[in-house]
Amino acid sequence: MATVGNSTNIFWQESPIGRLERQKLLNQKGCVVWITGLSGSGKSTLAFSVNKELYSRGKLSYILDGDNLRHGLNKNLCFSAEDRTENIRRVGEVAKLFADAGLICIASLISPYRKDRDACRAMLPDSNFIEVFMNMPLELCEARDPKGLYKLARAGKIKGFTGIDDPYEPPLNCEIEIKQKDGVCPTPNAMAGQVVSYLEEEGYLHF
Amino acid sequence: MATVGNSTNIFWQESPIGRLERQKLLNQKGCVVWITGLSGSGKSTLAFSVNKELYSRGKLSYILDGDNLRHGLNKNLCFSAEDRTENIRRVGEVAKLFADAGLICIASLISPYRKDRDACRAMLPDSNFIEVFMNMPLELCEARDPKGLYKLARAGKIKGFTGIDDPYEPPLNCEIEIKQKDGVCPTPNAMAGQVVSYLEEEGYLHF
Repeated sequence: MATVGNSTNIFWQESPIGRLERQKLLNQKGCVVWITGLSGSGKSTLAFSVNKELYSRGKLSYILDGDNLRHGLNKNLCFSAEDRTENIRRVGEVAKLFADAGLICIASLISPYRKDRDACRAMLPDSNFIEVFMNMPLELCEARDPKGLYKLARAGKIKGFTGIDDPYEPPLNCEIEIKQKDGVCPTPNAMAGQVVSYLEEEGYLHF
Repeated sequence: MATVGNSTNIFWQESPIGRLERQKLLNQKGCVVWITGLSGSGKSTLAFSVNKELYSRGKLSYILDGDNLRHGLNKNLCFSAEDRTENIRRVGEVAKLFADAGLICIASLISPYRKDRDACRAMLPDSNFIEVFMNMPLELCEARDPKGLYKLARAGKIKGFTGIDDPYEPPLNCEIEIKQKDGVCPTPNAMAGQVVSYLEEEGYLHF
């Protein structure tokens, strides 16, 4: 009899068609591309560009967008420290399922705390967690302010906003860093190219 | 500015590569096959057989097993009425994501309450929710007792066990019903054939 978390009498069942078989069918390797960075740093833009570039190569990827998931799986969570952690844990668990299904799962979330991201990394076996840090200056993100949130945070109408009155902890050992060169941001295509080249080199785009 | 559930300032972002493009790539249509029934009714056996048969046809499916998810996404839930509902809600939300990703998602859970299953059905657009009822007699399930749980429940060592001291509410309008014929259970292959034929007829196995 097994005891798991809050439950007892839970058994593990293994299907005869597993990850390897699915990867063979898709001719790719499942993994999680975890994009972290400030609001306005370009996470969604990068996610869309990678998704598009992979599709053009016949590869199946799927985006888990932090905001979108708050409409569904995570709609019973708010922005307290505890709920932020639970939010990221659930996204990590779902990303793990998608990677197990053989997909290249692109998770796009501010995910400001290092310990929460590291907990997601620890869920994935065999270094299939690829952390992408959108290293853009706060001033740039605030100037872009695509959702008008920095303005609200500065006006005190949003509390606990990452970068303003809540910390962002940059990754210490990310696989990929996206940043400006000579004060110029890379184009979406160039950013996607950086990620897709990494996937290619690491063997994720073939079985 | 959007207010969603417990959160404000949440936007919805739509990727240019959507469900249709993924379905085209996979040459199939995403959907959820939701297998419900008593413990020991053969849910996992059916899930594995459907998974295998679809794979042999070059189709990508993925099993969400209720017990397995309690090791991960749902490990912070127990078996109270409230947590059972939340357990099924989360599985429904994840199944919806897999269907959106273009996969044939096979969810295998006792899911004893009609209202919880119907809530999952309501999440899925365009009748992409296929409810499969494992209509096996309690006596048979209890005689099989593959995990030894009925014995524990009868001895009072498990409380709130479905079929013993907690109700199972059979579906009223399921798409597929699996049952004995002349007191004989169908073989795993025959059960899978019933499900896969349905998917074929309804057009899920081609784009």
